[in-house]
Amino acid sequence: CKDRLYNNYIKMAEMEAREKEKIDFVVIVTPNHTHYPIAKAFLEKGFHVVCEKPLTVNLQEAEELNELAKKNQLLSCVTYTYSGYPMVKQAREMIHHGELGQIRMVLAEYAQEWLATPIEKKGNKQATWRTNPGLAGKSNCVGDIGTHMEHTVSYITGLEIESLCAQIDTFVRGRKLDDNAEFMVKYKNEARGLYWCSQVAIGNNNGLKIRVYGSKGSIEWKQESPDYLKYCPLNKPVQYLSKGRDPLYPEGEKFVRLPAGHPEGFYEAFANIYSSFLESLISLKKGNDIGDEFDFPTVKNGLQGIKFVNLAINSSDSGSKWFKWEEN
Amino acid sequence: CKDRLYNNYIKMAEMEAREKEKIDFVVIVTPNHTHYPIAKAFLEKGFHVVCEKPLTVNLQEAEELNELAKKNQLLSCVTYTYSGYPMVKQAREMIHHGELGQIRMVLAEYAQEWLATPIEKKGNKQATWRTNPGLAGKSNCVGDIGTHMEHTVSYITGLEIESLCAQIDTFVRGRKLDDNAEFMVKYKNEARGLYWCSQVAIGNNNGLKIRVYGSKGSIEWKQESPDYLKYCPLNKPVQYLSKGRDPLYPEGEKFVRLPAGHPEGFYEAFANIYSSFLESLISLKKGNDIGDEFDFPTVKNGLQGIKFVNLAINSSDSGSKWFKWEEN
Amino acid sequence: CKDRLYNNYIKMAEMEAREKEKIDFVVIVTPNHTHYPIAKAFLEKGFHVVCEKPLTVNLQEAEELNELAKKNQLLSCVTYTYSGYPMVKQAREMIHHGELGQIRMVLAEYAQEWLATPIEKKGNKQATWRTNPGLAGKSNCVGDIGTHMEHTVSYITGLEIESLCAQIDTFVRGRKLDDNAEFMVKYKNEARGLYWCSQVAIGNNNGLKIRVYGSKGSIEWKQESPDYLKYCPLNKPVQYLSKGRDPLYPEGEKFVRLPAGHPEGFYEAFANIYSSFLESLISLKKGNDIGDEFDFPTVKNGLQGIKFVNLAINSSDSGSKWFKWEEN
Amino acid sequence: CKDRLYNNYIKMAEMEAREKEKIDFVVIVTPNHTHYPIAKAFLEKGFHVVCEKPLTVNLQEAEELNELAKKNQLLSCVTYTYSGYPMVKQAREMIHHGELGQIRMVLAEYAQEWLATPIEKKGNKQATWRTNPGLAGKSNCVGDIGTHMEHTVSYITGLEIESLCAQIDTFVRGRKLDDNAEFMVKYKNEARGLYWCSQVAIGNNNGLKIRVYGSKGSIEWKQESPDYLKYCPLNKPVQYLSKGRDPLYPEGEKFVRLPAGHPEGFYEAFANIYSSFLESLISLKKGNDIGDEFDFPTVKNGLQGIKFVNLAINSSDSGSKWFKWEEN
Repeated sequence: CKDRLYNNYIKMAEMEAREKEKIDFVVIVTPNHTHYPIAKAFLEKGFHVVCEKPLTVNLQEAEELNELAKKNQLLSCVTYTYSGYPMVKQAREMIHHGELGQIRMVLAEYAQEWLATPIEKKGNKQATWRTNPGLAGKSNCVGDIGTHMEHTVSYITGLEIESLCAQIDTFVRGRKLDDNAEFMVKYKNEARGLYWCSQVAIGNNNGLKIRVYGSKGSIEWKQESPDYLKYCPLNKPVQYLSKGRDPLYPEGEKFVRLPAGHPEGFYEAFANIYSSFLESLISLKKGNDIGDEFDFPTVKNGLQGIKFVNLAINSSDSGSKWFKWEEN
Repeated sequence: CKDRLYNNYIKMAEMEAREKEKIDFVVIVTPNHTHYPIAKAFLEKGFHVVCEKPLTVNLQEAEELNELAKKNQLLSCVTYTYSGYPMVKQAREMIHHGELGQIRMVLAEYAQEWLATPIEKKGNKQATWRTNPGLAGKSNCVGDIGTHMEHTVSYITGLEIESLCAQIDTFVRGRKLDDNAEFMVKYKNEARGLYWCSQVAIGNNNGLKIRVYGSKGSIEWKQESPDYLKYCPLNKPVQYLSKGRDPLYPEGEKFVRLPAGHPEGFYEAFANIYSSFLESLISLKKGNDIGDEFDFPTVKNGLQGIKFVNLAINSSDSGSKWFKWEEN
Repeated sequence: CKDRLYNNYIKMAEMEAREKEKIDFVVIVTPNHTHYPIAKAFLEKGFHVVCEKPLTVNLQEAEELNELAKKNQLLSCVTYTYSGYPMVKQAREMIHHGELGQIRMVLAEYAQEWLATPIEKKGNKQATWRTNPGLAGKSNCVGDIGTHMEHTVSYITGLEIESLCAQIDTFVRGRKLDDNAEFMVKYKNEARGLYWCSQVAIGNNNGLKIRVYGSKGSIEWKQESPDYLKYCPLNKPVQYLSKGRDPLYPEGEKFVRLPAGHPEGFYEAFANIYSSFLESLISLKKGNDIGDEFDFPTVKNGLQGIKFVNLAINSSDSGSKWFKWEEN
Repeated sequence: CKDRLYNNYIKMAEMEAREKEKIDFVVIVTPNHTHYPIAKAFLEKGFHVVCEKPLTVNLQEAEELNELAKKNQLLSCVTYTYSGYPMVKQAREMIHHGELGQIRMVLAEYAQEWLATPIEKKGNKQATWRTNPGLAGKSNCVGDIGTHMEHTVSYITGLEIESLCAQIDTFVRGRKLDDNAEFMVKYKNEARGLYWCSQVAIGNNNGLKIRVYGSKGSIEWKQESPDYLKYCPLNKPVQYLSKGRDPLYPEGEKFVRLPAGHPEGFYEAFANIYSSFLESLISLKKGNDIGDEFDFPTVKNGLQGIKFVNLAINSSDSGSKWFKWEEN
């Protein structure tokens, strides 16, 4: 199929649309600022889309893609990887089934260290585009990892943000975009949240960690040991649940491939996102009405991430005042 | 000495003042609202004082005690226990000697669970007075453990708060005082802080944890395993320092009693505070000028704790607006 | 290629041998007792072989396969998965380069719990064949996981066993094969070893853990958090090395696919074994002389595993007397 | 009481025996080889005795002291500190009450690093006497920490050793006594044990760790975090019990001084031994018949420790043959 290799996305979208056996969907894994035009081009031509996060570099673009996907009845997946881990799905189900009672407090953090020094000045490719406003958008740290954190919390707890107050920092001198941020959150149900994301936290690799405290219990999940879930029911001992060992809700169990203690990691989480996407795609192609609730993150979640970034920037720019979600 | 047992502190202060071989100092370990009158009574009669935290239940009282101690040239110790741990002292010295470079971010948390349900209604004595505004003052959680957290951060980092924004919560219905709080902090040197204290965090015993990130490295200390200090220098492997094993600065080494791996805990930390206090007291009695820098927390630190509580309440009451430290 | 699907291995070996574009190699993932005849059939017809461990159910068969592979100059891979982890390769290189000095003591354990009760009597398929001497051979636990443990130690340390003393246990009543075993080992260089493997150790998933103590330092690796390696150099702080973060020897670095903190697990370790095997295969097919040292476990290692099982059984059967390796 | 300070123990025993208000008991914390004559002197004069372990440097002396204490109806305490920790007592009670079912396997280790190099040649006082056969007896490592390990296992599990096989090593060249040892154990109830003690295990402080696996569950206790107990019941999640938080058996609860998460360490464990001893002493002085079961380790346990050392040496000297307990 060498004749179906294209040297730009516009041509690809056009040509593939004319094929008899056209591609089923397109995967967009390019720098942030190109997500929008590429996704738009394919959604307009009727192709389902899988896109990296952050979905776009501004709110308007994200809303447009959301509308477009809805209008053309297309599947759109935004690859928030961490929601693909079985124990994250287990956490979500435990909360959904009331095992933690009324949620009171959410602690989220996503700590990395790779930008602790100005490596973008020394030719590191990843660092160069991510700290360049022209390519990464208005935010580096919040856009790159803050959105993962926001989505994982939202996915696990189902809580909706009512208002937030953010402080966005650039600790490395001369850097053009942020490398650290803190957030205080009030949710609609009176729960509170405290978030931190950082790319200058020396000693941390990819430290996404979510803790949720409710009136009946708590859970804690750490991305670097993803197969385990700390769980503490009220007045009972602290427990550690293991993937493949302890009984999970079907939504998590479904994605357990290996016996207990055989580590599954990042690739498998990614694969779970894709496999859920494909399941929906197959069902859709069979002519089923697949509704609008999916077990993979969609452009709707991508839009929510962009709103989170947008609101955080507005808050931080105003001297860390509180902003309501609707002020987006 | 049965004739020197008194049934109230006023009598005790008066009578002891007349003794030839009078007591050296008094220790105040009564409920919060009584600290002020007792401390005042003894300071006025010329006695050195050791007092539990929070020093008082309002700012004015704390300032008065601070002035009184200064005026009468008396030693005053406020027992912020956690600054007595050798590895906390080690952390302080590492930062002081620049091993972490410029401090960027401080994460502090103090998570307990004991008030997750309304046990004050079931006769728990500790819970009853601590959640009673008449006995505990304007705050329960921030006053009781938030002040420990604030002091430990301040002790370790030497950072001064420029402004803060607080959200103080009462999650258990019907409770009269707070049981949870979040804080965003801006320090004078442009570092940022994020604090959380809670008494409703199910699964946590006495989870005081401090993390400090600088331009050259980071440290992490957890109160429940106090003999260890996680340390990560830039571009070097993550390390765990052990009390009694790895070389410490003299300020920490001084308080190491046992060989490595022989746990020292809360009692020993307390004892370290007292032993530092007594060292100063002995030196003072020998006629030395002992200056105004001590290796134990003083009424000045106690006053700072009260200011922290006060500012947090003001911020939270105003809808979590930012307040400057000077607005105290 | 439906005409090249065969319903038994004998036919497959014969027919493929006659093909022009014959298969490159065969993968054997059937129950233990069938490894030998299948491997033999393909090795005799000149096919390279990848085989699950334990290589065979007795020593004679293993030796025969080893000879056969040598004679026919064929690649033979025995999939001891755990040697595929990057941090295991790093451990091996550290020891090889003398970072631990003279090895003194090796502690190895492989603790599982899945056979703590007689689940073979309740229809568990895995349990049924593994505890059946007709299908699993003379040993269940030592053959299944003891061999992994032996190989990982041998791979990391390069030590050769001089003699061993074993106690093999069947704790679950009525079970026909072993479910637990302990070993004391003397190596040729005067180092000592202590091994334990168990399938009845309640609370353990797949707890392979290796610790090596030398005159200059120590390392510790745990299979359930495979991306990290605990390392302690003499008189230096304890360190935790992270895959993707800390500099590794090229032999380990080569297999790092993802940035630090993005977990890679069991599938990736397996893939590393295969990718090393394929690299050698490609080189061989290019006409290169590839020597007899490979970065994947071979039938030689498979044979060594069978010898370990054999010697352990002999020792245990004799009342846990010491046996020399040569007594195999 | 300056006239009751003595410059040798013989005089002290004699003089105190003549006093009207004589001392209640004597504490022996001198080098190993002096325990026997001192203990003997005081037991003969009718004094209760508290003695450091190992009780003596040979079996005959230990047996003599045991007989003497029995004959003179005196309390004798041997300070095996680790049995003083509340969570060790909890472990003992859990096993005693059948929560682990039939014990199958015991893993014990006591890993230190302080003798990894010949520091006795550089004037380290502790190292000098401990590696000197004239002062420490026939064993350094097994006598010093192996006995602790043996006692903690025996205290927790109640298991009696039927036979053992030991390998005792001296890894540091020129050292006169052992610095490492491994043990395989068969208990009278068909359970098995695997022990390791070392003073050359670089990276370890005071790593006493006990794991017990039974037919219904398992426990794990680590001396460096003594306030916690890992517990896993069959088919239930892994749990971590906390001192002061989770309900303990009265025998453990009795020694909990502080709220959950307030660390208690080595001093407190020691204090618990003494407080149990004193409780018995007071009861005895009140004229009660106090039987022969005590909640503190006695000279009987001290004797058992000496037998363990003795048997291990015999086994190791014979080329690590198995010895029955009775062959002592």
